[in-house]
Amino acid sequence: MTAHAPTEPEKFTSAVYSSRLERAAADAARTGLAGVIVAPGPDLTWLTGYRPPAATERLTLLVLAPDQEPTLLVPTLERPDAEAATGAPALQLAAWTDGTDPYEAAAALLPAEGTFAVSDSTWAAHLLGLQRTRPGTRYRAMSEALPMLRAVKEGAELARLTAAGAAADAVYDEILGRPFSGRREREVAADLAALLQHFGHEQVDFTVVGSGPNGANPHHEAGERVIEPGDAVVLDFGGLMHGYGSDTTRTVSVGEPDEEVRRVHEVVRNAQQAAFEAVRPGVPCQEIDRAARAVITEAGYGQYFIHRTGHGIGVTTHEPPYMVEGEEQPLVPGMCFSIEPGIYLEGRFGVRIEDIVTVTHDGGRRLNTTDHGLAAVS
Amino acid sequence: MTAHAPTEPEKFTSAVYSSRLERAAADAARTGLAGVIVAPGPDLTWLTGYRPPAATERLTLLVLAPDQEPTLLVPTLERPDAEAATGAPALQLAAWTDGTDPYEAAAALLPAEGTFAVSDSTWAAHLLGLQRTRPGTRYRAMSEALPMLRAVKEGAELARLTAAGAAADAVYDEILGRPFSGRREREVAADLAALLQHFGHEQVDFTVVGSGPNGANPHHEAGERVIEPGDAVVLDFGGLMHGYGSDTTRTVSVGEPDEEVRRVHEVVRNAQQAAFEAVRPGVPCQEIDRAARAVITEAGYGQYFIHRTGHGIGVTTHEPPYMVEGEEQPLVPGMCFSIEPGIYLEGRFGVRIEDIVTVTHDGGRRLNTTDHGLAAVS
Repeated sequence: MTAHAPTEPEKFTSAVYSSRLERAAADAARTGLAGVIVAPGPDLTWLTGYRPPAATERLTLLVLAPDQEPTLLVPTLERPDAEAATGAPALQLAAWTDGTDPYEAAAALLPAEGTFAVSDSTWAAHLLGLQRTRPGTRYRAMSEALPMLRAVKEGAELARLTAAGAAADAVYDEILGRPFSGRREREVAADLAALLQHFGHEQVDFTVVGSGPNGANPHHEAGERVIEPGDAVVLDFGGLMHGYGSDTTRTVSVGEPDEEVRRVHEVVRNAQQAAFEAVRPGVPCQEIDRAARAVITEAGYGQYFIHRTGHGIGVTTHEPPYMVEGEEQPLVPGMCFSIEPGIYLEGRFGVRIEDIVTVTHDGGRRLNTTDHGLAAVS
Repeated sequence: MTAHAPTEPEKFTSAVYSSRLERAAADAARTGLAGVIVAPGPDLTWLTGYRPPAATERLTLLVLAPDQEPTLLVPTLERPDAEAATGAPALQLAAWTDGTDPYEAAAALLPAEGTFAVSDSTWAAHLLGLQRTRPGTRYRAMSEALPMLRAVKEGAELARLTAAGAAADAVYDEILGRPFSGRREREVAADLAALLQHFGHEQVDFTVVGSGPNGANPHHEAGERVIEPGDAVVLDFGGLMHGYGSDTTRTVSVGEPDEEVRRVHEVVRNAQQAAFEAVRPGVPCQEIDRAARAVITEAGYGQYFIHRTGHGIGVTTHEPPYMVEGEEQPLVPGMCFSIEPGIYLEGRFGVRIEDIVTVTHDGGRRLNTTDHGLAAVS
């Protein structure tokens, strides 16, 4: 297969983290929040470059509040790691030691009252600790209070997402030439994982191979089923490359598809296209969902499209903005998200087509550009 | 190296999950809780055998409350996966669909009032959703409300932890024969990871190689530093085997150790032994910490022992009971935890010795049994 050595992009500098921290604080103030609380996870990585070995029972917490330096509270034994983070120059470091109450240490950094945005994946145990030591404070999930903080990508972020998408496309091109019939789903999934790494991903997050009836389970990963001639096979794979996500889906046919597979595939393809054509600045997210759903409903398959149309992507593969009924947030240039309608016929087969799309000043641009036709594999 | 093919233990049956669910509900009732709320993570895996692909923004929630069947709420698109879990026969399944409010669906499963234990790693976003839709409810972290739920291991669990410990010991025996001097820390770490897998681990969680001054950072993982003659090297590694954790640490010397390394190592070895000898049923956890700390303080290194003495281990590598000042929980036969005192001399070196220990009816038994002496490597 073609050699492919993605160029390592320049690392984000401490100035980038500094400006993100400022943006978060400003967005919080503008929204009437008293501050922002961030535990280890994608928000912390994005804001500071700090990524502790694992999110654990030991409290690590970034606190952004007006009139104080951004402060990162860490366990004493992880202090050297935190000091080494690229964003550390923009942070005050505070530490707490095993055997003391970390929530008392955190409370000392928080105003006594006010509403804080808290990163979604913060452990409940930690939030409850803050609610106990600072009973006058209130909390809202980051994805609800500041949903758009990471949604509009910086140029260097869009470049990474574009590269990750191109790598995923190279994986799809390559897998089309591999045998399907007679192999187990998990063998094809292992090929996808190896190809994602070959084309530059440092992390493989999912490699869905849903053949025949398994394709009707949208989150079926890959199992022992032996792929057969005539199967429709849903391939949905992605991970992180240089810290940014890929996520693409194509549905292929092993040999000649039967008439219904062909028909359903065409409906999904038209739905994906309709949703893509609806993308432009100012359009509410839910309109993207509606555009795809209208096509599928019109064709009589509405009840078999059992999930939202898309999700944002960045340092995670699922984040705001969500393309879902009820989400009125308008699209803004630089947003990146999936468009992935599907039809799932239980016990028979499933079809899904997914591209990552970015919003431009006058429409949308696909970051996945492989053909949408129903490819025949062997 | 010696071939080593750990026998696959029998899978936990649905009867095992059923009895764990009953035990959790009974413990909750006895503690005055209105119920137990569990999101994806170790508690859910332990209670039901269900392990969704990832903990995400889409709500999955197990609700245990008196006078109702244990109920698992899942996103519609993940329902087939949940139905396939071993523990599913003991569960009612409920589903919510994208575009509806999952917290309203969860609220319908919760009594309007009362205090619930909530699994520690539940996303804050989910807890806030419950607090919003059921304002009359209160929550406590599982590790605080029901800290001992998973702490006393069943026989089959102890067998798995014993096997994981033996595999980690085999890794240590093997790494002693590999070269250290002139190799980078990360190369030795890669050996440790490969060996853990070779000896049966399905998941590698950490491979600390802290050479020379890097050993003074307890959570240093492994980096580019080239290991030199005379270095003390902290090796701390573990992961999951058949779903249960290993975690062991030894400190080795590259060639002849200098006098202070030898002295500090002897202090840590005595501290580890003293803590181990303090283990017996009825002893409060904090006494294990005190026993280790007393030896180190007596030797004049108290300020350099900057973390607790140990943590429980089971389906995770960090869980209650914690061997830490302030933890008065008495030891119970069947508990399993680490004893891992250390001394960290900044800019110079660190020493840590760690075994997993289980409480027997009259004392303790080590699940790691490799020699505690300061081994010389080449």
